[in-house]
Amino acid sequence: MPELRKDPIIGRWVIIASERARRPGNFIDTSDNEVENENGECSFCNNQRKIIECNLSSSDVSVVFSKDSVCDPQKEFHRTKQGLYDVIDRFGVHEIIIETPEHIANIADLTVEQITSVFKTYCVRMHSLEKDKRFQYVLAYKNYGPTAGSRKIGHTRSHIVATPVQPLRVKEKLVGAREYFNTNNRCVYCDLISQELKSGVRIVDETEHFVAVIPFAARFLFETWIIPKEHHCDFHKGVKGHETDLAMIMKTLLQKYQKGLDDPSYNFVIQTAPFHKVDPKVEMWKTIQQDYHWHIELMPRLTRVAGFEKGTGFYICAIPPEDMAEYLRGIKIS
Amino acid sequence: MPELRKDPIIGRWVIIASERARRPGNFIDTSDNEVENENGECSFCNNQRKIIECNLSSSDVSVVFSKDSVCDPQKEFHRTKQGLYDVIDRFGVHEIIIETPEHIANIADLTVEQITSVFKTYCVRMHSLEKDKRFQYVLAYKNYGPTAGSRKIGHTRSHIVATPVQPLRVKEKLVGAREYFNTNNRCVYCDLISQELKSGVRIVDETEHFVAVIPFAARFLFETWIIPKEHHCDFHKGVKGHETDLAMIMKTLLQKYQKGLDDPSYNFVIQTAPFHKVDPKVEMWKTIQQDYHWHIELMPRLTRVAGFEKGTGFYICAIPPEDMAEYLRGIKIS
Repeated sequence: MPELRKDPIIGRWVIIASERARRPGNFIDTSDNEVENENGECSFCNNQRKIIECNLSSSDVSVVFSKDSVCDPQKEFHRTKQGLYDVIDRFGVHEIIIETPEHIANIADLTVEQITSVFKTYCVRMHSLEKDKRFQYVLAYKNYGPTAGSRKIGHTRSHIVATPVQPLRVKEKLVGAREYFNTNNRCVYCDLISQELKSGVRIVDETEHFVAVIPFAARFLFETWIIPKEHHCDFHKGVKGHETDLAMIMKTLLQKYQKGLDDPSYNFVIQTAPFHKVDPKVEMWKTIQQDYHWHIELMPRLTRVAGFEKGTGFYICAIPPEDMAEYLRGIKIS
Repeated sequence: MPELRKDPIIGRWVIIASERARRPGNFIDTSDNEVENENGECSFCNNQRKIIECNLSSSDVSVVFSKDSVCDPQKEFHRTKQGLYDVIDRFGVHEIIIETPEHIANIADLTVEQITSVFKTYCVRMHSLEKDKRFQYVLAYKNYGPTAGSRKIGHTRSHIVATPVQPLRVKEKLVGAREYFNTNNRCVYCDLISQELKSGVRIVDETEHFVAVIPFAARFLFETWIIPKEHHCDFHKGVKGHETDLAMIMKTLLQKYQKGLDDPSYNFVIQTAPFHKVDPKVEMWKTIQQDYHWHIELMPRLTRVAGFEKGTGFYICAIPPEDMAEYLRGIKIS
């Protein structure tokens, strides 16, 4: 079973295969080894796995455990130290959200009602996983297309991963948002929405409850953030009642990508707050509710990240965000 | 000219094209647009650009400015604020190190003497750029092969980029190393080398002055760190006198990659300390000399990073580091 290992310098957690399952010499990317069953058929059209009950009426979304998620709900995680290094014996749970029974590749081609069901399913699973005190964080994300870690021909699906540690990227955002709140007594994301709506130059789309904006310092071509206008730190609590509105803006954006960027590979990730916000030992969590603001990052995969980005943590974006926003605004969806 | 923009939440700097040079609709990766001249010939075999003088005897390495590096040495950088956002009007300088006049693709195929000259050239350029008080950091890195941001058929070269800001990835390492020193009164990298040499399971190679080790929490398949045994925070000062030893361990490693991993694309980045270590306003820099330790990260590009990694900042590594080290140790270089 995979284990979690922590980098002793920067505190980044890595999921490491702890078995000699794959012998060196066969290092291809097999992240998609769940797509086909042994007969070469789509394993989501022909799902044989146990469905995790979500109790959502009129939904055709199914949730199953990923094959790599062997996480006994009765078992505590063991945390050990090997000299300098920290290890946890399991990584958490990994669930797959099969978004429709039909063999459709891109969530952009589902109806708004179907996409609404997908978001409602995320919420149900997050609420359920939050009750398991072993977990600190849950990530909901999607990989679409060959350069985003998934096969283009695949069956539209997304992922829910719950982990016993707080990921580094999330911590960075929490710390940044707190520093901003401490200085300004306001949420940085609320200020960002306000400034962006005023100028309008980086806005791609807007609905009653959401704004889609190309970030001022975009890392990737056509990177877009969907930010709720209403301040809330948790996706699964904050989105309540607005799932259809979110499905609408998401579908529009993904259709603009599809039409304007030649059906690119993309990822989206829901950036929600960690579960435990009132741990008395970690002062930061006390203020998460006021200073963090959930949002979704969409990242088309049009370019490759090279050594410069990996070495420095800063990125090169070849088109001004204002031009990207203008271009996407101009793509008309019939 | 490209400008630097800062993400207002986490403080990450992004280089953004500030001109409408490339119209939307043509979003292919053109990071390699310097490889060929207008006649389709290799622009490094037929270099027409001005050579930056390095005064190294018996070296056939040449340094030229990148085309995107229009950085007038007489001009100050302008830092402005646009509401929430910070901007610097230029990104710095970008130099290209043409490692040999011959049309050879992989630095692994150069002689140890030639690779030694490459490292000596990095040092000369870093010493020179350090004198320019506008710069806070210099990154030396290499992209090899199509999945690492460069064409495989290209001419072996590496990059030096000097920036007026401190990159986020570097800051994370400085902060982590300082926290470790504060707790233990020892350098984390010195402790790491000591623990790794004792156990031996993740060591790939060792020379008189360097250790090549697969990190305990490797992000990428066959990620390898070259760490100098002698504690020094700066590459260009610490490597002095040991350039040949470094060239030897680097050549061995890259040959092992070439032979054992089917000539993979890879990046390497030199992780050195920032230039200014005694800014009285930033306490951190006071201690950089004692708590930071320069090193090189080598990253073969055998797998793709997907949404999960982007969203959380933690990675999935499908082979245990101990197995990767054992495999690379077993690759014999004739």
